[in-house]
Amino acid sequence: MNEAPGRHEPADATTVKPSMRDALVGAAFQLFLERGYEETTVDDIVALASVGRRSFFRYFPSKEDVVFPDHERCLADMTAFLAEEAGAEDPVRRVCDAARLVLRMYAENPTFSVQRYRLTKKVPGLRAYELSVVWRYERALAEYLRGRSAGARADTLSADVVAAAVVAAHNNALRSWLRSDGTGDAEAAVDRALGYVQNTFGPLPAAPVPTEPEDVVVVVSRRGAPMWRVVQEIESAFARG
Amino acid sequence: MNEAPGRHEPADATTVKPSMRDALVGAAFQLFLERGYEETTVDDIVALASVGRRSFFRYFPSKEDVVFPDHERCLADMTAFLAEEAGAEDPVRRVCDAARLVLRMYAENPTFSVQRYRLTKKVPGLRAYELSVVWRYERALAEYLRGRSAGARADTLSADVVAAAVVAAHNNALRSWLRSDGTGDAEAAVDRALGYVQNTFGPLPAAPVPTEPEDVVVVVSRRGAPMWRVVQEIESAFARG
Repeated sequence: MNEAPGRHEPADATTVKPSMRDALVGAAFQLFLERGYEETTVDDIVALASVGRRSFFRYFPSKEDVVFPDHERCLADMTAFLAEEAGAEDPVRRVCDAARLVLRMYAENPTFSVQRYRLTKKVPGLRAYELSVVWRYERALAEYLRGRSAGARADTLSADVVAAAVVAAHNNALRSWLRSDGTGDAEAAVDRALGYVQNTFGPLPAAPVPTEPEDVVVVVSRRGAPMWRVVQEIESAFARG
Repeated sequence: MNEAPGRHEPADATTVKPSMRDALVGAAFQLFLERGYEETTVDDIVALASVGRRSFFRYFPSKEDVVFPDHERCLADMTAFLAEEAGAEDPVRRVCDAARLVLRMYAENPTFSVQRYRLTKKVPGLRAYELSVVWRYERALAEYLRGRSAGARADTLSADVVAAAVVAAHNNALRSWLRSDGTGDAEAAVDRALGYVQNTFGPLPAAPVPTEPEDVVVVVSRRGAPMWRVVQEIESAFARG
């Protein structure tokens, strides 16, 4: 959508000359924090960044878009990553890896991400904008999963459910990192959250190639034991194997 | 949020005298279909319904709200249903049952639901509105699941993931029913979709009370068998028991 030039520039403005686009984002956030989002106009932003109104709209269709300057790039990166395709790879693992691209975008710039998180919580219009971005990520993952399946009715169901689970797990970890003001290890938290989804939906962790084809694992479970215990036992059995 | 009087009235306007609220919804949809959503003003709607502007805004905060007249009631019903609480019931089953309330609202009036579905697909603002409603349903389910768990970090993760999975499964079935123009058995489709989520996350189907506490089930699985096969074996073993 936003085909603005410069959207592939590195986000770390300390090592490169900030582009006009970066200058607009910086000016916008300075004003949003000082005056509030609603109280800041596009005219205020362009005045502070010393550029014209038309330059603003060349980069951002609206004031809302300047709050989320990197999502279009990230969506494009995610789509490209999923299109690359490693045929043999487990599709659930693949969509988990795709979700990690979003985390990386947030983690690249913790201060900015935390500021935006606080702003988004306060402004309903930004919350709605964010929900539609999240929806687009979820659709990208679901489309990929549908493509990897046989296309039967059941497969659109599991594709939608797995995509939603991946997004929910990712966002659970991301939000908890943002609430901690960007301290802590975001990648570890997301790995843990996505691990839960992979354990739930994905195939078992790759077991060593069996030396005999008829190699078996025996699970003995008390009747009525909760499913997570049964799964845990199976996983331990495989780990021991 | 929308505390308008009359929001608890039965939706079936053929058996009761239509309220002013119903008349406004009817007039609005007649105009949206004839002229388009963007081209219809609140003034057009109140003129057709022969009521004043203030009456409109007594029932609906904005033109968008008249498109989704029953979601506030349904959200309230869902919250009340979850608050009732059957302590011993499996929480995953409970949130699946809560999601069925949403389906019932759509299925009560297929023609209206299909018209709205088509309208929502065409108007980005309505799509955004719908996403925030869906988000509120998902939060209601997740809050309930968090409350049913011990409150540990891991439990907010599974609560968020299960809530997202329930919503995605429900919406997969709902959308497919809406795309079929409201023909077919919506309840059966949603039962199937939610059954998938319950099988994935819920406890095993209630087994007969074991006659001996140490009653066991033995599953023998070829190493490397996919998890769904293992789970299927366990379920068959319980069914045989």
